[in-house]
Formats: sequence, structure tokens, C-alpha cells
Amino acid sequence: MASHWEDFYATHLPPPDFEDNRSILKEFCERHKKIGQRIVLITSGGTTVPLEHNTVRFVDNFSAGTRGAASAEYFLEHGYTVIFMHRLKSLEPFTRHFNGQKLMDMLELDERGPNTSITVKPDSVDVLAPVLARYKHAQECGRILYINFTTISDYFWLLRAACECLATFESSALLYLAAAVSDFYVPSNEMPTHKIQSGSGVPNIQLQLVPKLLAPLVSLWVPQAFVVSFKLETDEHILIPKARSALNNYKHKLVIGNILQTRSSRVVFVTPDNNYEVVLTREQQLNGMEIEDGIVSNVIISHTEFMKNSKY
Amino acid sequence: MASHWEDFYATHLPPPDFEDNRSILKEFCERHKKIGQRIVLITSGGTTVPLEHNTVRFVDNFSAGTRGAASAEYFLEHGYTVIFMHRLKSLEPFTRHFNGQKLMDMLELDERGPNTSITVKPDSVDVLAPVLARYKHAQECGRILYINFTTISDYFWLLRAACECLATFESSALLYLAAAVSDFYVPSNEMPTHKIQSGSGVPNIQLQLVPKLLAPLVSLWVPQAFVVSFKLETDEHILIPKARSALNNYKHKLVIGNILQTRSSRVVFVTPDNNYEVVLTREQQLNGMEIEDGIVSNVIISHTEFMKNSKY
Repeated sequence: MASHWEDFYATHLPPPDFEDNRSILKEFCERHKKIGQRIVLITSGGTTVPLEHNTVRFVDNFSAGTRGAASAEYFLEHGYTVIFMHRLKSLEPFTRHFNGQKLMDMLELDERGPNTSITVKPDSVDVLAPVLARYKHAQECGRILYINFTTISDYFWLLRAACECLATFESSALLYLAAAVSDFYVPSNEMPTHKIQSGSGVPNIQLQLVPKLLAPLVSLWVPQAFVVSFKLETDEHILIPKARSALNNYKHKLVIGNILQTRSSRVVFVTPDNNYEVVLTREQQLNGMEIEDGIVSNVIISHTEFMKNSKY
Repeated sequence: MASHWEDFYATHLPPPDFEDNRSILKEFCERHKKIGQRIVLITSGGTTVPLEHNTVRFVDNFSAGTRGAASAEYFLEHGYTVIFMHRLKSLEPFTRHFNGQKLMDMLELDERGPNTSITVKPDSVDVLAPVLARYKHAQECGRILYINFTTISDYFWLLRAACECLATFESSALLYLAAAVSDFYVPSNEMPTHKIQSGSGVPNIQLQLVPKLLAPLVSLWVPQAFVVSFKLETDEHILIPKARSALNNYKHKLVIGNILQTRSSRVVFVTPDNNYEVVLTREQQLNGMEIEDGIVSNVIISHTEFMKNSKY
């Protein structure tokens, strides 16, 4: 059985920089509350489950963070303010298009002592300029806040803190929970201090079920917000039943289901009323379109509808 | 008990791009063999242990890849040819100095339609130019080969293939095994196909000890090469005994021991004859020096000595 979420907080200390992050979240939300824009909290990337206190080994979830990072760009385009809560080193909006070497390869070095200059090669400008323009624009209007986590415990603490700040946005707040959160963890008091030694044989890892935060999140923390969760499976047959069961359990508005192998071209929206697919055709893919464009547009339509109904 | 290394290869298929990588390694080594330079194989970053065939969850080892990526730069500086075999997305030489946002923030966009240009801000040129110059130089002389792995099985297959190519270099080959390799794994035939379901309770993960590749590597694959392995611990008391015991077991030349918490300022060289520390003082740290500079210099001194003795 999963431990209760309150027990998890009671037995896991907040991360060292928690108070700083809480202040930053608070300040960011208060500033944007005044402007009256819609706000989305995007969680992205996988959480780790440390197996030792001085962590050498950990269990991780497969997630590069593509879904969350791409979606953040589309939400910004649609005028949303974005809190991008992501796994440290997972993909980030804008920079995701260029890894380190790709960017270095675009640069031309003209070494002339104190007059040395570095420019982007003309044939790379076409590719880089539009992304760079959108990046700079988002930075300048301060419409995106980056917050990062590594462990499941970091994630728990930061998610609750973000919800506290988002509650005042009522139905204007959208929670887009795309992070791949661990289902299992090793309780802090059962974790060895030091690196597990292989000489002493195979370790017996005692896993415990992680409490589902969606329950308190939907019912207590942001009861008026529009909450979207994601469900990733590898077995097609259980995807929709599992998505629907999550919806029934937690009473939120939308589960976006996807299959590991096809997740970049097909997802299914599961709502209390129906299911429908959002698909990226092969032609759209070849034209450089991304499925997150369609996902975000559809989510925003539902959010708009939800806000209208919340007013009465 | 650990399974035998031959059983591991017999029960784990090579990764899909294995033959491509083997050809690339072979071609690279043959080209550099003609030039007669010394060559170093650096392994870097952690390996993963998948818990499912359609992998959603895996066990990972803490390693950003700093040690290997920084060392690669210093080996290049000392004239070595470098095979940089690293965990996908771990730090790489040169690009490690600038993450995506840092690099984007250095860029200035001058939007003038078809004459749009992007330049590095003058005050960033000082920081970027020296690294960029070294990066371009290494690329142009083709003295570094990047090969990447993700799982422990990828690592096993690639390491053996690299050793096959390096054997002909005899004592001019240096193996600098800095990767954080998993000690435990889930055998392929005991792994579930699909994502483990949390509804069915806590999974029972049956781990097995990973066979130590150092044994066949030193005695069979590259018996004439200079082999350096690393030992990371969190408990100071067992570091030197464990390093010495590895040296006794595998009969290679050098173990570099380090403690998780102090690894960027202090390591211990454990050789068949003695132990000595390589330390970065606080002052050196403040001057921007890196301990890998000292580690690599000391390793090269030992390698040079070893090559001299091998000739007679």
C-alpha cells in the first residue's frame, strides 16, 4: 500500500534551496497575478529515487523532457505565463533545439587579438534566429520561470509550494503535469548512508509505493484550477482504461494518454465525457511540426471552456 | 555471485548501431595508428540498468561526466588522440563549459530581414573564444572520436570493440576508465516486457552482480596497454583498501580513488608500489584550475615510464 502523502512530507526534509525557490515562486506569481494573465505550471522530466543517502545510485524514469519543454514554447506563444518545473539537465524550451556541439559548430571565430570576434555562420542564422528571437522575447518579458528538481522528494516539495501560489489564480491556473514521476521509492529511514557495496552480494532494495499527489492537489491545493495529467504506458491495451481510472479517482478534468513508442505522433485525450485522439500526420512531421502544438491548442480550448463555466 | 563476462555477452544482444560504431572505431584507430601518436580511451558518465524491456524505469549511477570530459581536454592538450566513450547526454569536452542557456544568453540578435546577423556579445568573447579555439582545433585535426552509450549492455559491447582496436597500439594505448559502471543489473531474460504496474503492488526487482570487465580487459583484450581504473566511494575508510584490492585482483597499473564529496579537489593514486595524493588547493580552485589537469599530467608521467619499460 502507498503511504499517505502527509506521511511523505513528515518523513522527508525539504531540499536545501527550498525556501529560496518558494520565495521566487511567490514573487513570480504575485507579479503576474496583477497583470491578470493565464498561468500554466508545466512539470517536465523524470524524478529520481535515491538508493543511498550519499547518493551514488538511484532509480530513474525515462524522460528527456521533450513533451514539457516543447509545450512550454507553445503556451508562451498563446500568451500564457509559464512556470517550467523540470528535472535538472532535462530539455528546456528553446535551448532544446540546439545541443552544445550543434551550437558551437554554428560559431565562427575570427581571432584578432583584442579585436577577436565570434559570429554565427550565415547559413546557420536562418535556423537559429527565429528560436533565439522567441527565447529573448520570453526572457525580456519575464513570462517564464525555471525551477528545477532532481529527486522525488524535491518534486513533492516544489509541487506543493507552486500550488499554494497558484491557488489564487482560481480557474485561470492550468496544471500540465507532464513529469514522469516515480511510482516507487526507498523510504528515507530505510536507506543506507553509504554506497551499497557489491562485495556483500546483491542488495535487497525495499521499494514502497509513492503516494499519488494528484489526490490532495485536485481536492485541496488548487480545487478551482484546470488540472491535466499524463499517462505513459508501453502496452496499448491498458492505456485508456488506466487513464479513465485516474480521472475517476482524482476527479480532475483531463488525462492525456500516450504510448512510449508512438508518443511523438499520437496521444489520446481522455475527459469525463469522451476520448479523442490528437495525431500528427507524417506530412506534418516532415514539415517540422510537433505534436505539442496540437496538444497545447486542444488543452487551451478546454481550459477556456472551463474558465467560462467556472464564472457562473 | 557475478555471472561470467562471457555469459553476459551470450545473453545480451549488441545495441542496434553496434556494427556502425565498430567500423567507426576501427577506421579511427587505423588512421591514427599510422601517425604513431599515443591514444587514450576515456570512458565517462554512468551506465543505466533498465528494469523493463520497453524501458520506462532504470537504475542509474550518479555521474555528470565532469571527470571524463575535463580529462579529455587535457589529454588533447598533451598530444594524445582521444576516444571519448561517454553516456549519451553526459558532459562532453569543450561544450561542458557552456550549457544551452548560457550560450544563448551570449548571443546578440540583429534582425534585419535577409541581412539578419547573430554575434557573440563582446564581453562574452573573452570567455568563449579560448574554448571555441580549442574545440575547433580538435575537430579540425580529427583527434577526438565521440562514441556514446546508455545501458550497461551498450557499454559492455562498445568497450570490448574499442579494446580490439586498441590492442595494436600496444603500450602506446592508455585506458582511462572513468565511467561509473553499474554493479548490479536485471538479466535480460528476467526483465518484464512492459512498464511495471504500480497497481499490482511493489515490484520485486531481482538484481544480479555485473561481471567485472577489468579482468578480461587487462589479461586478454589489451594486455600490453596502460590501464587506469577509478574507484568512487562515499566512506573514506574503505577507499584505499578497496582501490588496492582492485589492483591486486586485476593486475593493472593504477587505480585513482576518490570520495564523492571531495572528488573535485582531492584524489589518491594507488599503484602497485605506493599511494600518493593529487590535490587542488583552494587558491588553485579560485584561479579556475581543475584537478583533472593534475590528474592527467600525473597519469601521463606514469604512462611514459611504462612505455619506456615495455620496450625492453
